[in-house]
Amino acid sequence: VKTDKPMGISACDLNIGDRASFTKTISESDVYTYAGITGDLNPAHVNEEYARATQFGGRVAHGMLSVGLISAVLGTKLPGPGTIYLGQDVAFKKPVRIGDTITAEVEVVNKIDKTKYTLVELKTICTNQTGEVVIEGIAKVIPPQ
Amino acid sequence: VKTDKPMGISACDLNIGDRASFTKTISESDVYTYAGITGDLNPAHVNEEYARATQFGGRVAHGMLSVGLISAVLGTKLPGPGTIYLGQDVAFKKPVRIGDTITAEVEVVNKIDKTKYTLVELKTICTNQTGEVVIEGIAKVIPPQ
Repeated sequence: VKTDKPMGISACDLNIGDRASFTKTISESDVYTYAGITGDLNPAHVNEEYARATQFGGRVAHGMLSVGLISAVLGTKLPGPGTIYLGQDVAFKKPVRIGDTITAEVEVVNKIDKTKYTLVELKTICTNQTGEVVIEGIAKVIPPQ
Repeated sequence: VKTDKPMGISACDLNIGDRASFTKTISESDVYTYAGITGDLNPAHVNEEYARATQFGGRVAHGMLSVGLISAVLGTKLPGPGTIYLGQDVAFKKPVRIGDTITAEVEVVNKIDKTKYTLVELKTICTNQTGEVVIEGIAKVIPPQ
């Protein structure tokens, strides 16, 4: 098999309950590089002395960094390449610490036929290595057409 | 003045209409590094030959990368350090291209007193160098207490 042109899953081939996930350990390097890319040098993320005195007791990863893992699953797995990302709602439930292993999982929960396309909604959840939900939300996408 | 402990703006000192922003040119390096950090190697972001054949006519930045600029404003400026980021809703309105200069602006639109804290809602918008809105949404935060 030679896959010349990567192509995700079309709306017709997506079913309610379809799932995909991606797991990654969030490293100190990830957090510092993300801070540089985004400009978010909030001391909660990059100043251990400051962060130790907060309710979190130490540096935490940017919440939006883990949301990037959700985007990764949508863009590379389900529905995959060709997907148009319309929107994302997220709630940050628990902190993500440096060294935590985060699993982003997406699950198709709704297919809504529009005139020119099918809107697909996916439940999006990030859990840590102990199974705690750290982020939950809903993504809206148009699958590859 | 010596600022030993960075501290953002408390709910009492936040007023409806307060605004802050951050502007950054999104570089190719940002996009590729973000792809590595998040695992989102969707060809729309990292494969120019593939991307040229899409409706966008070339590589686009990850939408969630620009959302990181919103997080940066919330965490470093308004309300600033000590803010608890509860959630974010975003809609992706237009693509962000490599080399685009993105301004993330946040504006306080709601203060809701709860038993133990004040929930603050901010309108969050990203515009490009021509003034087009590329992302819009709402952030929910608890300001520093």
